[in-house]
Amino acid sequence: MNTSKHLRSWVASANGHADFPLQNLPMGIFSVGQSGKRCGVAIGDMIFDLRAALDASVFNGVARLAAETACRDQLNDFFALGASARQALRAELLHLLDEKSPQRDRLKLMGSTLLRPISDCQMHLPARVGDYTDFYVGIHHATNVGLLFRPENPLLPNYKYVPIAYHGRASTLCVSGTPVKRPMGQTLAPGADAPTLGPSKRLDYELEVGVWIGPGNEAGVPIEIARASQHIAGFSLLNDWSARDLQAWEYQPLGPFLSKSFATSLSPWVVTAEALAPFRASQPKRPEGDPAPLAYLLDDEDQNNGALDIELEVLIQTEHMKTKSLAPHRLALSNTLHMYWTVAQMVAHHSVNGCQLQAGDVFGTGTLSGPHPGQLGSLLEMTHGGKHSIELPGGETRTFLLAGDEVILKARCRREGQVSIGFGECRGVIVG
Amino acid sequence: MNTSKHLRSWVASANGHADFPLQNLPMGIFSVGQSGKRCGVAIGDMIFDLRAALDASVFNGVARLAAETACRDQLNDFFALGASARQALRAELLHLLDEKSPQRDRLKLMGSTLLRPISDCQMHLPARVGDYTDFYVGIHHATNVGLLFRPENPLLPNYKYVPIAYHGRASTLCVSGTPVKRPMGQTLAPGADAPTLGPSKRLDYELEVGVWIGPGNEAGVPIEIARASQHIAGFSLLNDWSARDLQAWEYQPLGPFLSKSFATSLSPWVVTAEALAPFRASQPKRPEGDPAPLAYLLDDEDQNNGALDIELEVLIQTEHMKTKSLAPHRLALSNTLHMYWTVAQMVAHHSVNGCQLQAGDVFGTGTLSGPHPGQLGSLLEMTHGGKHSIELPGGETRTFLLAGDEVILKARCRREGQVSIGFGECRGVIVG
Repeated sequence: MNTSKHLRSWVASANGHADFPLQNLPMGIFSVGQSGKRCGVAIGDMIFDLRAALDASVFNGVARLAAETACRDQLNDFFALGASARQALRAELLHLLDEKSPQRDRLKLMGSTLLRPISDCQMHLPARVGDYTDFYVGIHHATNVGLLFRPENPLLPNYKYVPIAYHGRASTLCVSGTPVKRPMGQTLAPGADAPTLGPSKRLDYELEVGVWIGPGNEAGVPIEIARASQHIAGFSLLNDWSARDLQAWEYQPLGPFLSKSFATSLSPWVVTAEALAPFRASQPKRPEGDPAPLAYLLDDEDQNNGALDIELEVLIQTEHMKTKSLAPHRLALSNTLHMYWTVAQMVAHHSVNGCQLQAGDVFGTGTLSGPHPGQLGSLLEMTHGGKHSIELPGGETRTFLLAGDEVILKARCRREGQVSIGFGECRGVIVG
Repeated sequence: MNTSKHLRSWVASANGHADFPLQNLPMGIFSVGQSGKRCGVAIGDMIFDLRAALDASVFNGVARLAAETACRDQLNDFFALGASARQALRAELLHLLDEKSPQRDRLKLMGSTLLRPISDCQMHLPARVGDYTDFYVGIHHATNVGLLFRPENPLLPNYKYVPIAYHGRASTLCVSGTPVKRPMGQTLAPGADAPTLGPSKRLDYELEVGVWIGPGNEAGVPIEIARASQHIAGFSLLNDWSARDLQAWEYQPLGPFLSKSFATSLSPWVVTAEALAPFRASQPKRPEGDPAPLAYLLDDEDQNNGALDIELEVLIQTEHMKTKSLAPHRLALSNTLHMYWTVAQMVAHHSVNGCQLQAGDVFGTGTLSGPHPGQLGSLLEMTHGGKHSIELPGGETRTFLLAGDEVILKARCRREGQVSIGFGECRGVIVG
C-alpha cells in the first residue's frame, strides 16, 4: 500500500487537511436530513458516500464485497470481515481518490451524490456496540487517582501484571456532539453521616482512546497475542465522563457503576489500523524493577511495533468563552505512548478466560495521562481531587465541569516523512 | 385475571405440574431440529407454539398484536410492549388452554403443530441482551464474602444506602444446558511473589434470579420507583459462574472482570410478573438500626407488596453420582425474601443517573444466600473460602467445582390457596 507523503487527492480540501488527508480514510456512519444512515469515508472536509460509489460501480472484486458489507446502517458486519477486506477497500479508495485516478473526471461529475460536506451531515455511532469494556492502562492516571482514593496504596500489586479493566455500559455510548446531562446520584458529603441524592458536583471528563473490535473469537477460545491485531478494526476518541462524587461513594467493592454509566462519548470516525501503521512504535521500556509481562501477554512483534504514537489533546470552551469568542483552551496534551499495556495485550488478556469478543465491541484504554503537569487527562488529576482550581481564559476558574462547558478531545499522528493524520473531534457539552 | 387454584388445562400434563401449570405460562424462544427460533409458552411438559396458534387465528385484538410481536426469534420487541400487551396475551392463553375452552377440540386436532414436548425442543436465550448488570442485594452473601475478602470490614458503609451493582458481560450470557468451560486466568498463589497463568482452581456458582427488563427509559430520564414495575418483563434463574482465585487477584480497584465474564447461565423460561403476582410479599423489615432508604428508593406499594417470595434451590450432580445413578444433591435452599433491595429499587437506582435501560436488558440480583447453613448460595460461602470441604452422596468431597460437575438451579413459588409454579431449571456442567 502506498501511503507516502507524495499522494494527493483530487478532493482539494484533503491535501494538507489536519485530520483527513488521503492517507487517513476513516470510516463512519452518517445521514443527511431524513435520509437513512449509511457508511461514508472522510476525505478532507467531505464525506465520500460509499453507497453512491457502489451504485456507480466503481469497485471490483474483494473491495466491492467489502463496500457492500459496509453499506449498512452500522459497520458491525464490515468489522467482522477483518483485515484483508478492509485493506482491499482501502487500496481501492486510495486509488479512486488519488489526483491521478483514471476515474477522477467521472467521479467529479457525480458531484454531491458522491461527496457531501461533513458539515451538512449528521454523524452516528459507527456500530451497534455489544459490549463496552473500559481498561485502565494509563499508568500515570492510575497512580494519580490511586493517590487520591488510596493514598497509602496508590498502585495496587496487580497493576503491573494485569491489564486492569471493568465492564462499562453499552447503552449510553453516544456519538460526539451529544449533550451530556449532569447525572443525579448518591454522594456522601465530607463529614456527613449519611448520603444524599442530588446532581453530581464533581463532573469530569476522561481522555481515552476507543478501540473497535473486528472479528470476534469463538466462546471459550482465547485470542493469542500474536494474532490479536487481526481482531482490531480501528480507533476513535473516547470521553469516559465521570461523576467523581458518585464514584467515591459507590465504587467499593464492585467498581464504578452509576458514576460512569450516564454517558460515554465517542468520536464518529473509525481510524483504521492501516492508516495508523506508519505511527506504530516499540513499546516503551518498562521502568527498572517492573516485572516482565506473563508469557500470554508477551510477543516480539508487539513489543517492537505494537505501541501507538498518537498525540492526544483535551480542550475546554465554556459558555462564557463562547460569548467572548475565546477559542477552546487546551487542558492537556498527552500521548498513547503512556499506555502501560498495548492494545494487543488488552485483547489477549480480555479473551484469555474464553470471554467472547464480538465485532463492534468497544474497548476504552482508560485515561491516558502523561507524567508531567500539562499531560493530565482528567480534572480530578489537574485539580488534585478538586483542591486546586484551574484558570481559564476570560477569567473563569474550574475544579469540575459546569453547565455549558464543552469538552473537546482531539488526536493527531505526526512523524517525520509521513503525512499527519487526525481523528476528528469528540465533543460534549454539559447540560444542567 | 382468574388464576385461582381451580383452573385446569386440557393439556393434561399441566395439571399438578411442578413448574408449568396453567397458572404460570412462561414465555421462551425455542427451535426444533433445524427449524428457525420462535416463541413458545410452556404448559406442562409441552411447548405451545405461538406462531402456529397465530396461523390458526386463535387470537384477537391486543392479544393478537402481542402474539405477533412475540413471534420473532427474540422477545425484545414483545418485552418493549409492556404490561398491558403481556396481560392481554396471558388472558387469551389462560382462556384458550383452560379445560373448558370452547376452542379446545379444534386446538387438540392441531396436535404437534401446536404443542410439542419440551424434551424435543432446543431452548435459546429469550432475548438479545443489550446490557447485563449484576447487583449485590443478597445481604447475607455480601456479609459472608466480605468476611473472606475484607475480614476487618465485611459490609462496607455504602451497602445499606446503595443497591450495589456492577456491569457484567452480555456476550457470554448463555442458556441453561450450555457447558461451562473452566477459564484460564492469572492467580496469585498464597505466599507467591508473582502471579501465574493457569486454569482456575476455585470455580464456583452463584445462585441468583435474573430480571428481564421490559420497556426502557429515555436516556437522561430516571424511572421513578412508583413506576418501576412497569419496566419489568419477567424473571429467570441466573447462575453467575465465578472463578474465585481470578477474582481475588484482579478485583481491585475496578471490580470483578475475567473472574465472571467467561459464562453466565440463564434458565430459558421468562416467568412473568403476572404469574408471580400471587407470590408478592411485603419487604422484610430492615434490622433495627439500619437506615431508611433514601426517598428515591422508597415507595409504599413497593414496601408493602414489592418483595418476592420465591424458594430457590441449588443442587449438584457429579459425574460419579451420575455413574452411580445418584440423584442430584441439594446444596442450598434459599429464598428471594433475603434480598435487601427490591427489584423496583434496583430499577430506580440503576436509572437515577439517567442511564438508559432497554428492553431485553438483564439484571442479576446477586447471590441470594440466607442467614443459616443450608441457605448459602455459593461454594465460597459453604466452604468458608475453600477451607472446609463438603461431602456429597457417593463419598466424594468438594471445595470448588471439578470437571463433570453439573450445577442445577431451581425455583418454586408456594403459597396457601395458590397453585405452585416453578421456573424450570438452570443447568450447567463444568468442562475441563
